[in-house]
Amino acid sequence: MQDSIEQYMQAVGQQARKASRVLSSASTHTKNNALSAIYTALVNHEPEILAANAVDMQKGRDSHLDSALLDRLELTPTRFKGMLQGLKDVIALTDPIGEITDLAYRPSGIQLGKMRVPLGVIGMIYESRPNVTLEAASLALKSGNAIILRGGSEALQSNKAIATAIQHGLKVAGLPEHAIQVIETADRAAVGQLITMTEYVDVIVPRGGKSLIERISNEARIPVIKHLDGNCHVFIDVEADLHKALPIALNAKTHRYGVCNAMETLLVHEEIAEEFLPRIAELYAEKHVELRGCQETRRILGSSVKTATEEDWYTEYLAPILAIKVVEHIDQAIEHINKYGSHHTDAIVTENYSKVRKFLAEVDSSSVMINASTRFADGFEYGLGAEIGISTDKIHARGPVGLEGLTSQKWIVFGDGQIRH
Amino acid sequence: MQDSIEQYMQAVGQQARKASRVLSSASTHTKNNALSAIYTALVNHEPEILAANAVDMQKGRDSHLDSALLDRLELTPTRFKGMLQGLKDVIALTDPIGEITDLAYRPSGIQLGKMRVPLGVIGMIYESRPNVTLEAASLALKSGNAIILRGGSEALQSNKAIATAIQHGLKVAGLPEHAIQVIETADRAAVGQLITMTEYVDVIVPRGGKSLIERISNEARIPVIKHLDGNCHVFIDVEADLHKALPIALNAKTHRYGVCNAMETLLVHEEIAEEFLPRIAELYAEKHVELRGCQETRRILGSSVKTATEEDWYTEYLAPILAIKVVEHIDQAIEHINKYGSHHTDAIVTENYSKVRKFLAEVDSSSVMINASTRFADGFEYGLGAEIGISTDKIHARGPVGLEGLTSQKWIVFGDGQIRH
Repeated sequence: MQDSIEQYMQAVGQQARKASRVLSSASTHTKNNALSAIYTALVNHEPEILAANAVDMQKGRDSHLDSALLDRLELTPTRFKGMLQGLKDVIALTDPIGEITDLAYRPSGIQLGKMRVPLGVIGMIYESRPNVTLEAASLALKSGNAIILRGGSEALQSNKAIATAIQHGLKVAGLPEHAIQVIETADRAAVGQLITMTEYVDVIVPRGGKSLIERISNEARIPVIKHLDGNCHVFIDVEADLHKALPIALNAKTHRYGVCNAMETLLVHEEIAEEFLPRIAELYAEKHVELRGCQETRRILGSSVKTATEEDWYTEYLAPILAIKVVEHIDQAIEHINKYGSHHTDAIVTENYSKVRKFLAEVDSSSVMINASTRFADGFEYGLGAEIGISTDKIHARGPVGLEGLTSQKWIVFGDGQIRH
Repeated sequence: MQDSIEQYMQAVGQQARKASRVLSSASTHTKNNALSAIYTALVNHEPEILAANAVDMQKGRDSHLDSALLDRLELTPTRFKGMLQGLKDVIALTDPIGEITDLAYRPSGIQLGKMRVPLGVIGMIYESRPNVTLEAASLALKSGNAIILRGGSEALQSNKAIATAIQHGLKVAGLPEHAIQVIETADRAAVGQLITMTEYVDVIVPRGGKSLIERISNEARIPVIKHLDGNCHVFIDVEADLHKALPIALNAKTHRYGVCNAMETLLVHEEIAEEFLPRIAELYAEKHVELRGCQETRRILGSSVKTATEEDWYTEYLAPILAIKVVEHIDQAIEHINKYGSHHTDAIVTENYSKVRKFLAEVDSSSVMINASTRFADGFEYGLGAEIGISTDKIHARGPVGLEGLTSQKWIVFGDGQIRH
């Protein structure tokens, strides 16, 4: 079995590599044609796709998947419409491939510039949500990359049905069918193969729980664009405008709980804590947010607030729970963020110019915000179109990753016969 | 021993991480001050450094190091001057850190942009040449990164002497001495530690032979900016201007042999081969370049030309040897380059507009050149100032890597109290 999985994955890899060569020089027109044909095929195949999803859902219920997972797995007609809209958005995006920038003459007489090119073959590993299949496939196609998709086994029928529509679209546009491949085995060995086929795969994008991503990062022999966790902070400075601070602190925590850009720890300057904390606590109480505070927070808000432990500062709750710490000054806030945070998204609320500059320069996170809710850190809000993930790495892509994160730049040189002396 | 190496390296890593936090927000003025102080210290320490190098050289001769290695190891007064000039060049470079680009308003009212930041801690692994110690240290410092340097054991005394001058310079400028650390053990286990300390090191830059780099890439748990090999091509199209083609083909092969951007295979369009090959062969003969040709090449040039085997197409000779293949058309040339090449640097010589566009779009190499010698692919010629390496990867940095390759961009958001709806 192990052998046959290896053979299967090697074949998938070879086909992807071959298809990627065609895709890399496909015109914008051809790629958009394929995406439009996929759109039409999806509309035509909607009943089959929803039926396949119903099979996955029934199997999921039979095997007692937890309700959050079942929720993510489900494709309703509304979600299906959302998927189609996402696809339309990708068609509307500017094709990044072939863009030439920075063309300038060097003293030798050569003219040097950079040209944007696809990475090649993307390996995508994800859990449950079948809409990721379409999102990832369309972003890969638009950016001239081939993609190998490995969704969760619980979504296999849904993903296969979506893949059928995608294949149909590729065929209509005359692009190789292996440009987008869905792994059709539930065997976990397939993932082990995918993340080590260095000759066939150029980058791995995992999406899912922290344990999945950690496992993949540890075992991959291929660069991984990974998103570990989002332990985000908002720091309310003594010079904060409370008309901004209160809505931001409320929005960053309560707009949605289960998302990576939600605030998990609130930091408050000690000279504003007496005024700010009781007012924000009242707003959190209305939303039933559980507060866990440092000693000073509990002195101000009362001992009904639980004590935050060292562990709390590290925790991404993804729930209506918030840790609160009173700090002496901005340096302590920055130190806390850089030490306990996950380098995802952190914000300061202040009117002070020099503190803005300090916070921007010293907070080591993929998004650093001034007087705005951390909830803005996402591909749509950043105008990237669809988002293939949010990277907490520093190498290659950082923060929300859209089309450009799936590309690279090569150097180009225009000469007139120059030789090196 | 293994334990103590681990403890030693962990301490080195922790200190580097700590120093990197200071460096990341050091001003351009402070960093340049430190570099100038290092310059002065090097000038003052020249006798000690050359004496230390003499010790390494003697030891090298005693242990029968080969002459190429001894040559790379040697620090002559002329080479020392070259090192100092390189340092001056780095001081003159624009500081990339803190650069803010693409600031634009989003529909939500937030203003979004990107800010250039250091990667953090660089691990540099290299062989013999002690000037790399200064080059890498100065580039890291200028770009706000801490660096851990692990040179070859044969250069240990030279590297320690250079490091002493560097430490002195850091001290004068008030920067942490651990910003630049030289590993002082010859134990190979130190490398194993360095490339797996994911919490303390952000990127590994290996420089050396292919086997060293392959070993490091395979074992590293940290992203590697690697340069495997340079199997470069020049394709002489039927529409080539021979006044350009002859000098380029000669220069790309014979300007220097032991460099990664030298041409290793010459591809010639069949309709120009009869005219071009005898003329270029004459020029190569003057330089005593050994030719290995395909069947058609040997038909034209005579059977004194050796037969090129499949193996030859893959080979980076780094020597006065050249493989030659006659191809039917540009597609065959591109296919050959993408299949056998190392995606380093490849050139076409042609006057045809559409072939230029095709070659640029379809050749998958870090540098793609039109009517210019492949020898131009280097950090100095590209105006990057010093070069920390040439990357044959697509992720993060591609081609010659200078200061910018040691940086990353974070997103920054300026708001006025915006929350997400």
